[in-house]
Amino acid sequence: MTRIPVITNILAYNDAVARDVRQAIGPRVLTLNLISSPGAGKTSLIERTAAALAGELRLAVIEGDLATTLDAARVAAHGVPVVQINTDGGCHLEARQIMAALPELPLAELDVLIIENVGNLVCPTEFDLGEDAKVALISLPEGDDKPLKYPGIFLAARAVVLNKMDLAPYLPMDVERLRQGIMTINSDASIIPVSCITGEGLAAWLEWVRRELRAKRARISYTKHAESPTP
Amino acid sequence: MTRIPVITNILAYNDAVARDVRQAIGPRVLTLNLISSPGAGKTSLIERTAAALAGELRLAVIEGDLATTLDAARVAAHGVPVVQINTDGGCHLEARQIMAALPELPLAELDVLIIENVGNLVCPTEFDLGEDAKVALISLPEGDDKPLKYPGIFLAARAVVLNKMDLAPYLPMDVERLRQGIMTINSDASIIPVSCITGEGLAAWLEWVRRELRAKRARISYTKHAESPTP
Repeated sequence: MTRIPVITNILAYNDAVARDVRQAIGPRVLTLNLISSPGAGKTSLIERTAAALAGELRLAVIEGDLATTLDAARVAAHGVPVVQINTDGGCHLEARQIMAALPELPLAELDVLIIENVGNLVCPTEFDLGEDAKVALISLPEGDDKPLKYPGIFLAARAVVLNKMDLAPYLPMDVERLRQGIMTINSDASIIPVSCITGEGLAAWLEWVRRELRAKRARISYTKHAESPTP
Repeated sequence: MTRIPVITNILAYNDAVARDVRQAIGPRVLTLNLISSPGAGKTSLIERTAAALAGELRLAVIEGDLATTLDAARVAAHGVPVVQINTDGGCHLEARQIMAALPELPLAELDVLIIENVGNLVCPTEFDLGEDAKVALISLPEGDDKPLKYPGIFLAARAVVLNKMDLAPYLPMDVERLRQGIMTINSDASIIPVSCITGEGLAAWLEWVRRELRAKRARISYTKHAESPTP
Protein backbone atom coordinates (compact mmCIF):
# COMPACT_ATOMS: atom_id res chain seq x y z
CA MET A 1 0.00 0.00 0.00
CA THR A 2 1.28 3.48 -0.87
CA ARG A 3 1.81 5.96 2.00
CA ILE A 4 -0.03 9.24 1.45
CA PRO A 5 1.95 12.12 3.05
CA VAL A 6 -1.09 14.30 3.61
CA ILE A 7 0.12 16.55 6.46
CA THR A 8 3.37 17.39 4.72
CA ASN A 9 1.45 18.40 1.65
CA ILE A 10 -0.79 20.80 3.57
CA LEU A 11 2.20 22.75 4.84
CA ALA A 12 4.12 22.58 1.56
CA TYR A 13 1.06 23.87 -0.31
CA ASN A 14 0.61 26.65 2.24
CA ASP A 15 4.25 27.69 1.90
CA ALA A 16 3.92 27.89 -1.88
CA VAL A 17 0.83 30.09 -1.61
CA ALA A 18 2.57 32.23 1.03
CA ARG A 19 5.32 32.97 -1.50
CA ASP A 20 2.63 34.13 -3.94
CA VAL A 21 1.07 36.32 -1.24
CA ARG A 22 4.46 37.89 -0.47
CA GLN A 23 4.91 38.61 -4.18
CA ALA A 24 1.42 40.08 -4.51
CA ILE A 25 1.83 42.35 -1.48
CA GLY A 26 5.09 43.60 -2.89
CA PRO A 27 8.20 45.19 -1.46
CA ARG A 28 6.75 48.40 0.02
CA VAL A 29 3.99 47.17 2.39
CA LEU A 30 5.10 45.88 5.79
CA THR A 31 2.94 42.84 6.64
CA LEU A 32 2.59 41.64 10.23
CA ASN A 33 0.97 38.38 11.35
CA LEU A 34 -0.38 39.05 14.86
CA ILE A 35 -0.80 35.92 16.99
CA SER A 36 -2.05 35.46 20.57
CA SER A 37 -4.43 33.57 22.83
CA PRO A 38 -8.10 34.61 22.71
CA GLY A 39 -8.68 37.90 24.49
CA ALA A 40 -5.04 38.91 24.88
CA GLY A 41 -5.72 42.19 23.10
CA LYS A 42 -4.92 41.81 19.37
CA THR A 43 -7.87 43.91 18.27
CA SER A 44 -7.19 46.54 20.94
CA LEU A 45 -3.57 46.84 19.80
CA ILE A 46 -4.72 47.24 16.19
CA GLU A 47 -7.25 49.92 17.20
CA ARG A 48 -4.55 51.82 19.10
CA THR A 49 -2.14 51.47 16.18
CA ALA A 50 -4.71 52.67 13.65
CA ALA A 51 -5.55 55.72 15.77
CA ALA A 52 -1.90 56.61 16.38
CA LEU A 53 -0.70 56.17 12.79
CA ALA A 54 -3.64 57.97 11.15
CA GLY A 55 -2.27 60.67 8.83
CA GLU A 56 1.26 59.24 9.03
CA LEU A 57 1.09 55.68 7.61
CA ARG A 58 -1.68 54.00 5.64
CA LEU A 59 -2.87 50.87 7.45
CA ALA A 60 -5.16 47.99 6.44
CA VAL A 61 -6.26 44.98 8.42
CA ILE A 62 -7.28 41.39 7.68
CA GLU A 63 -9.35 39.93 10.54
CA GLY A 64 -9.40 36.17 11.10
CA ASP A 65 -12.14 34.78 13.33
CA LEU A 66 -13.96 31.51 13.85
CA ALA A 67 -17.26 33.39 13.73
CA THR A 68 -18.81 36.91 13.87
CA THR A 69 -17.55 40.24 12.48
CA LEU A 70 -17.22 41.85 15.93
CA ASP A 71 -13.49 42.58 15.59
CA ALA A 72 -13.73 43.81 12.00
CA ALA A 73 -16.44 46.28 13.05
CA ARG A 74 -14.21 47.60 15.86
CA VAL A 75 -11.32 48.17 13.47
CA ALA A 76 -13.45 49.59 10.65
CA ALA A 77 -14.70 52.25 13.09
CA HIS A 78 -11.17 53.74 12.87
CA GLY A 79 -11.61 54.37 9.14
CA VAL A 80 -9.15 51.64 8.16
CA PRO A 81 -9.80 49.21 5.26
CA VAL A 82 -10.70 45.82 6.78
CA VAL A 83 -11.39 42.40 5.30
CA GLN A 84 -12.98 39.74 7.49
CA ILE A 85 -12.11 36.06 7.04
CA ASN A 86 -14.44 33.70 8.91
CA THR A 87 -12.70 30.33 9.28
CA ASP A 88 -15.98 28.59 10.24
CA GLY A 89 -14.33 26.76 13.13
CA GLY A 90 -10.83 26.61 11.63
CA CYS A 91 -8.17 27.18 14.30
CA HIS A 92 -5.74 29.30 12.23
CA LEU A 93 -5.48 31.33 9.04
CA GLU A 94 -3.82 29.88 5.93
CA ALA A 95 -2.06 31.66 3.07
CA ARG A 96 -4.80 30.78 0.56
CA GLN A 97 -7.28 32.76 2.69
CA ILE A 98 -4.98 35.81 2.64
CA MET A 99 -4.58 35.45 -1.12
CA ALA A 100 -8.38 35.50 -1.49
CA ALA A 101 -8.61 38.64 0.69
CA LEU A 102 -5.92 40.72 -1.08
CA PRO A 103 -8.08 41.89 -4.03
CA GLU A 104 -10.36 43.60 -1.48
CA LEU A 105 -7.50 45.82 -0.24
CA PRO A 106 -5.99 48.98 -1.81
CA LEU A 107 -2.49 47.44 -1.74
CA ALA A 108 -0.85 50.14 -3.89
CA GLU A 109 -1.83 52.80 -1.34
CA LEU A 110 -0.76 50.96 1.83
CA ASP A 111 2.23 51.16 4.13
CA VAL A 112 1.30 48.53 6.71
CA LEU A 113 -0.96 45.46 6.57
CA ILE A 114 -1.78 43.76 9.86
CA ILE A 115 -3.25 40.27 9.79
CA GLU A 116 -5.06 39.43 13.02
CA ASN A 117 -4.91 35.66 13.28
CA VAL A 118 -7.47 33.45 15.04
CA GLY A 119 -7.02 33.57 18.84
CA ASN A 120 -4.80 30.55 19.38
CA LEU A 121 -1.24 30.37 20.69
CA VAL A 122 -0.48 27.03 19.01
CA CYS A 123 -1.78 26.32 15.51
CA PRO A 124 -1.20 29.67 13.71
CA THR A 125 2.55 29.35 14.37
CA GLU A 126 3.03 26.72 11.66
CA PHE A 127 1.37 28.64 8.84
CA ASP A 128 3.30 31.25 6.87
CA LEU A 129 0.78 33.83 5.63
CA GLY A 130 3.29 35.72 3.47
CA GLU A 131 4.07 38.13 6.31
CA ASP A 132 7.35 39.96 6.91
CA ALA A 133 7.23 39.17 10.62
CA LYS A 134 5.15 37.32 13.14
CA VAL A 135 4.27 39.37 16.21
CA ALA A 136 3.31 37.44 19.33
CA LEU A 137 1.13 39.16 21.88
CA ILE A 138 0.85 37.85 25.42
CA SER A 139 -1.24 39.45 28.13
CA LEU A 140 -0.02 39.52 31.72
CA PRO A 141 -3.03 37.65 33.18
CA GLU A 142 -1.96 34.59 31.15
CA GLY A 143 0.95 34.14 33.55
CA ASP A 144 4.73 34.22 33.44
CA ASP A 145 5.16 30.51 32.54
CA LYS A 146 3.70 30.72 29.02
CA PRO A 147 6.90 31.10 26.94
CA LEU A 148 8.29 27.79 28.21
CA LYS A 149 4.91 26.06 27.88
CA TYR A 150 4.14 27.38 24.37
CA PRO A 151 7.64 27.80 22.92
CA GLY A 152 6.73 27.58 19.22
CA ILE A 153 5.19 31.02 18.81
CA PHE A 154 7.88 32.77 20.90
CA LEU A 155 10.58 31.15 18.78
CA ALA A 156 8.87 32.27 15.56
CA ALA A 157 8.09 35.85 16.59
CA ARG A 158 10.28 38.84 15.70
CA ALA A 159 8.56 40.91 18.40
CA VAL A 160 6.66 39.94 21.52
CA VAL A 161 4.20 42.51 22.86
CA LEU A 162 3.37 42.16 26.58
CA ASN A 163 -0.14 43.57 26.92
CA LYS A 164 -2.28 44.59 29.92
CA MET A 165 0.68 46.02 31.84
CA ASP A 166 -1.92 48.09 33.76
CA LEU A 167 -3.04 44.87 35.50
CA ALA A 168 0.45 44.01 36.82
CA PRO A 169 -0.25 45.18 40.41
CA TYR A 170 -3.26 42.83 40.70
CA LEU A 171 -1.73 39.64 39.29
CA PRO A 172 0.14 36.73 40.90
CA MET A 173 2.87 36.81 38.22
CA ASP A 174 6.34 38.26 37.67
CA VAL A 175 6.91 40.38 34.53
CA GLU A 176 10.67 39.79 34.79
CA ARG A 177 10.19 36.01 34.80
CA LEU A 178 7.95 36.38 31.70
CA ARG A 179 10.67 38.42 29.99
CA GLN A 180 13.35 35.87 30.95
CA GLY A 181 11.20 33.05 29.57
CA ILE A 182 10.86 34.82 26.21
CA MET A 183 14.61 35.51 26.06
CA THR A 184 15.39 31.87 26.90
CA ILE A 185 13.36 30.79 23.87
CA ASN A 186 14.34 33.63 21.52
CA SER A 187 17.03 36.10 22.54
CA ASP A 188 16.58 38.06 19.28
CA ALA A 189 12.94 38.98 19.86
CA SER A 190 12.07 42.61 20.63
CA ILE A 191 10.05 42.61 23.87
CA ILE A 192 7.59 45.50 24.06
CA PRO A 193 5.49 46.01 27.24
CA VAL A 194 2.29 47.98 26.61
CA SER A 195 -1.15 48.71 27.96
CA CYS A 196 -3.85 49.31 25.38
CA ILE A 197 -5.97 50.80 28.19
CA THR A 198 -3.54 53.42 29.54
CA GLY A 199 -1.42 53.81 26.40
CA GLU A 200 1.80 52.90 28.28
CA GLY A 201 4.50 51.59 25.95
CA LEU A 202 2.58 52.21 22.72
CA ALA A 203 5.21 54.70 21.52
CA ALA A 204 7.82 51.90 21.60
CA TRP A 205 5.47 49.60 19.67
CA LEU A 206 4.82 52.26 17.00
CA GLU A 207 8.55 52.90 16.74
CA TRP A 208 9.14 49.17 16.21
CA VAL A 209 6.56 49.20 13.36
CA ARG A 210 8.17 52.26 11.73
CA ARG A 211 11.63 50.69 12.02
CA GLU A 212 10.48 47.40 10.43
CA LEU A 213 8.87 49.34 7.58
CA ARG A 214 12.04 51.36 7.00
CA ALA A 215 14.13 48.18 7.13
CA LYS A 216 11.94 46.45 4.54
CA ARG A 217 12.13 49.41 2.19
CA ALA A 218 15.87 49.78 2.76
CA ARG A 219 16.31 46.15 1.70
CA ILE A 220 14.61 46.99 -1.60
CA SER A 221 16.74 50.06 -2.20
CA TYR A 222 19.87 48.12 -1.38
CA THR A 223 18.86 45.24 -3.66
CA LYS A 224 17.96 47.64 -6.49
CA HIS A 225 21.18 49.51 -6.07
CA ALA A 226 23.27 46.33 -6.00
CA GLU A 227 21.48 44.91 -9.03
CA SER A 228 21.39 48.07 -11.15
CA PRO A 229 23.94 48.01 -13.98
CA THR A 230 26.85 50.44 -13.62
CA PRO A 231 26.26 53.34 -16.03
CA MET B 1 -8.10 8.34 -8.64
CA THR B 2 -9.56 7.23 -5.32
CA ARG B 3 -10.50 9.91 -2.77
CA ILE B 4 -8.79 9.35 0.60
CA PRO B 5 -11.05 10.70 3.39
CA VAL B 6 -8.19 11.36 5.80
CA ILE B 7 -9.71 14.02 8.08
CA THR B 8 -12.91 12.05 8.62
CA ASN B 9 -10.87 9.04 9.63
CA ILE B 10 -8.91 10.94 12.27
CA LEU B 11 -12.09 11.91 14.10
CA ALA B 12 -13.79 8.52 13.60
CA TYR B 13 -10.71 6.75 14.96
CA ASN B 14 -10.58 9.13 17.93
CA ASP B 15 -14.25 8.52 18.71
CA ALA B 16 -13.71 4.75 18.68
CA VAL B 17 -10.76 5.05 21.08
CA ALA B 18 -12.78 7.43 23.27
CA ARG B 19 -15.42 4.70 23.66
CA ASP B 20 -12.66 2.33 24.83
CA VAL B 21 -11.39 4.97 27.29
CA ARG B 22 -14.91 5.40 28.70
CA GLN B 23 -15.18 1.63 29.14
CA ALA B 24 -11.75 1.41 30.78
CA ILE B 25 -12.47 4.25 33.22
CA GLY B 26 -15.69 2.55 34.18
CA PRO B 27 -18.98 3.69 35.67
CA ARG B 28 -17.84 5.02 39.06
CA VAL B 29 -15.15 7.62 38.16
CA LEU B 30 -16.39 11.04 37.04
CA THR B 31 -14.13 12.21 34.21
CA LEU B 32 -13.92 15.90 33.28
CA ASN B 33 -12.19 17.36 30.21
CA LEU B 34 -11.10 20.87 31.20
CA ILE B 35 -10.64 23.25 28.25
CA SER B 36 -9.57 26.92 28.13
CA SER B 37 -7.21 29.45 26.54
CA PRO B 38 -3.61 29.46 27.78
CA GLY B 39 -3.33 30.99 31.23
CA ALA B 40 -7.04 31.14 32.03
CA GLY B 41 -6.43 29.16 35.23
CA LYS B 42 -7.00 25.44 34.53
CA THR B 43 -4.10 24.33 36.74
CA SER B 44 -5.09 26.77 39.50
CA LEU B 45 -8.65 25.42 39.49
CA ILE B 46 -7.31 21.86 39.71
CA GLU B 47 -5.01 22.82 42.60
CA ARG B 48 -7.91 24.43 44.46
CA THR B 49 -10.11 21.39 43.77
CA ALA B 50 -7.46 18.93 44.94
CA ALA B 51 -6.93 20.86 48.17
CA ALA B 52 -10.65 21.21 48.89
CA LEU B 53 -11.62 17.59 48.13
CA ALA B 54 -8.68 15.99 49.99
CA GLY B 55 -10.05 13.41 52.44
CA GLU B 56 -13.49 13.51 50.79
CA LEU B 57 -13.05 12.37 47.17
CA ARG B 58 -10.07 10.71 45.53
CA LEU B 59 -8.83 12.79 42.61
CA ALA B 60 -6.33 12.09 39.84
CA VAL B 61 -5.18 14.36 37.01
CA ILE B 62 -3.91 13.94 33.46
CA GLU B 63 -1.95 17.01 32.34
CA GLY B 64 -1.72 17.84 28.64
CA ASP B 65 0.97 20.31 27.57
CA LEU B 66 2.94 21.16 24.45
CA ALA B 67 6.14 21.09 26.52
CA THR B 68 7.46 21.06 30.12
CA THR B 69 6.08 19.37 33.26
CA LEU B 70 5.47 22.68 35.08
CA ASP B 71 1.74 22.08 35.57
CA ALA B 72 2.12 18.43 36.59
CA ALA B 73 4.62 19.45 39.27
CA ARG B 74 2.16 22.04 40.65
CA VAL B 75 -0.63 19.46 40.86
CA ALA B 76 1.60 16.66 42.23
CA ALA B 77 2.56 18.96 45.10
CA HIS B 78 -1.02 18.44 46.36
CA GLY B 79 -0.42 14.69 46.77
CA VAL B 80 -2.65 13.79 43.83
CA PRO B 81 -1.70 11.12 41.23
CA VAL B 82 -0.69 12.91 38.02
CA VAL B 83 0.28 11.73 34.56
CA GLN B 84 1.87 14.19 32.15
CA ILE B 85 1.25 13.97 28.41
CA ASN B 86 3.58 16.12 26.34
CA THR B 87 2.04 16.63 22.91
CA ASP B 88 5.33 17.90 21.42
CA GLY B 89 3.62 20.81 19.70
CA GLY B 90 0.24 19.13 19.25
CA CYS B 91 -2.60 21.59 19.82
CA HIS B 92 -5.04 19.26 21.63
CA LEU B 93 -5.21 15.92 23.44
CA GLU B 94 -6.58 12.84 21.67
CA ALA B 95 -8.26 9.77 23.13
CA ARG B 96 -5.32 7.49 22.28
CA GLN B 97 -3.11 9.59 24.54
CA ILE B 98 -5.58 9.20 27.43
CA MET B 99 -5.72 5.44 26.78
CA ALA B 100 -1.92 5.30 27.05
CA ALA B 101 -2.00 7.25 30.33
CA LEU B 102 -4.70 5.19 32.11
CA PRO B 103 -2.43 2.29 33.21
CA GLU B 104 -0.41 4.83 35.22
CA LEU B 105 -3.46 5.75 37.35
CA PRO B 106 -5.06 3.86 40.29
CA LEU B 107 -8.48 3.84 38.55
CA ALA B 108 -10.12 1.42 40.99
CA GLU B 109 -9.47 3.82 43.87
CA LEU B 110 -10.61 7.04 42.20
CA ASP B 111 -13.74 9.16 42.37
CA VAL B 112 -12.81 11.97 39.98
CA LEU B 113 -10.38 12.18 37.06
CA ILE B 114 -9.67 15.63 35.64
CA ILE B 115 -8.00 15.90 32.25
CA GLU B 116 -6.33 19.28 31.74
CA ASN B 117 -6.29 19.80 27.99
CA VAL B 118 -3.71 21.86 26.06
CA GLY B 119 -4.39 25.60 26.43
CA ASN B 120 -6.48 26.23 23.33
CA LEU B 121 -10.08 27.36 23.00
CA VAL B 122 -10.52 25.88 19.53
CA CYS B 123 -8.99 22.51 18.67
CA PRO B 124 -9.67 20.45 21.82
CA THR B 125 -13.42 20.93 21.33
CA GLU B 126 -13.57 18.39 18.50
CA PHE B 127 -11.86 15.52 20.30
CA ASP B 128 -13.83 13.27 22.65
CA LEU B 129 -11.40 11.99 25.31
CA GLY B 130 -13.86 9.55 26.90
CA GLU B 131 -14.96 12.17 29.42
CA ASP B 132 -18.36 12.45 31.08
CA ALA B 133 -18.40 16.21 30.58
CA LYS B 134 -16.39 18.98 29.02
CA VAL B 135 -15.83 21.94 31.34
CA ALA B 136 -14.94 25.25 29.69
CA LEU B 137 -13.04 27.80 31.69
CA ILE B 138 -12.89 31.42 30.64
CA SER B 139 -11.05 34.11 32.55
CA LEU B 140 -12.49 37.61 32.80
CA PRO B 141 -9.47 39.37 31.20
CA GLU B 142 -10.24 37.51 27.95
CA GLY B 143 -13.25 39.77 27.51
CA ASP B 144 -17.02 39.44 27.35
CA ASP B 145 -17.19 38.79 23.58
CA LYS B 146 -15.54 35.36 23.62
CA PRO B 147 -18.63 33.06 23.67
CA LEU B 148 -19.90 34.50 20.37
CA LYS B 149 -16.42 34.49 18.83
CA TYR B 150 -15.50 30.93 19.95
CA PRO B 151 -18.93 29.27 20.05
CA GLY B 152 -17.79 25.64 19.65
CA ILE B 153 -16.43 25.07 23.14
CA PHE B 154 -19.31 26.88 24.84
CA LEU B 155 -21.79 24.73 22.94
CA ALA B 156 -19.95 21.53 23.94
CA ALA B 157 -19.43 22.36 27.63
CA ARG B 158 -21.74 21.12 30.39
CA ALA B 159 -20.32 23.76 32.74
CA VAL B 160 -18.56 27.07 32.12
CA VAL B 161 -16.33 28.33 34.93
CA LEU B 162 -15.71 32.12 34.87
CA ASN B 163 -12.31 32.55 36.53
CA LYS B 164 -10.41 35.59 37.85
CA MET B 165 -13.56 37.24 39.23
CA ASP B 166 -11.19 39.15 41.58
CA LEU B 167 -10.00 41.18 38.54
CA ALA B 168 -13.51 42.34 37.59
CA PRO B 169 -13.09 45.88 39.04
CA TYR B 170 -9.98 46.50 36.88
CA LEU B 171 -11.26 45.24 33.53
CA PRO B 172 -13.05 46.95 30.63
CA MET B 173 -15.61 44.13 30.36
CA ASP B 174 -19.11 43.27 31.56
CA VAL B 175 -19.62 39.96 33.42
CA GLU B 176 -23.34 40.06 32.64
CA ARG B 177 -22.63 40.36 28.89
CA LEU B 178 -20.25 37.37 29.18
CA ARG B 179 -22.97 35.38 30.94
CA GLN B 180 -25.56 36.36 28.30
CA GLY B 181 -23.16 35.30 25.53
CA ILE B 182 -22.74 31.85 27.08
CA MET B 183 -26.51 31.44 27.53
CA THR B 184 -27.12 32.49 23.91
CA ILE B 185 -24.84 29.66 22.75
CA ASN B 186 -25.84 27.08 25.36
CA SER B 187 -28.73 27.75 27.72
CA ASP B 188 -28.20 24.40 29.50
CA ALA B 189 -24.64 25.12 30.67
CA SER B 190 -24.04 25.67 34.39
CA ILE B 191 -22.22 29.01 34.73
CA ILE B 192 -19.96 29.13 37.79
CA PRO B 193 -18.08 32.38 38.62
CA VAL B 194 -14.95 31.78 40.73
CA SER B 195 -11.66 33.28 41.76
CA CYS B 196 -8.83 30.81 42.33
CA ILE B 197 -6.99 33.62 44.14
CA THR B 198 -9.64 34.65 46.70
CA GLY B 199 -11.58 31.37 46.75
CA GLU B 200 -14.84 33.13 45.77
CA GLY B 201 -17.32 30.73 44.16
CA LEU B 202 -15.25 27.58 44.66
CA ALA B 203 -17.93 26.06 46.91
CA ALA B 204 -20.39 26.20 43.98
CA TRP B 205 -17.81 24.57 41.68
CA LEU B 206 -17.15 21.74 44.18
CA GLU B 207 -20.89 21.23 44.60
CA TRP B 208 -21.23 20.93 40.80
CA VAL B 209 -18.49 18.25 40.78
CA ARG B 210 -20.17 16.31 43.62
CA ARG B 211 -23.55 16.52 41.87
CA GLU B 212 -22.12 15.25 38.55
CA LEU B 213 -20.44 12.35 40.40
CA ARG B 214 -23.69 11.44 42.18
CA ALA B 215 -25.61 11.69 38.89
CA LYS B 216 -23.16 9.37 37.11
CA ARG B 217 -23.37 6.80 39.89
CA ALA B 218 -27.15 7.13 40.07
CA ARG B 219 -27.33 6.30 36.37
CA ILE B 220 -25.47 3.04 37.06
CA SER B 221 -27.75 2.11 39.95
CA TYR B 222 -30.80 2.90 37.86
CA THR B 223 -29.50 0.91 34.90
CA LYS B 224 -28.57 -2.05 37.11
CA HIS B 225 -31.95 -1.96 38.78
CA ALA B 226 -33.81 -1.71 35.50
CA GLU B 227 -31.78 -4.49 33.92
CA SER B 228 -31.77 -6.89 36.88
CA PRO B 229 -34.16 -9.82 36.31
CA THR B 230 -37.26 -9.84 38.54
CA PRO B 231 -36.71 -12.48 41.20
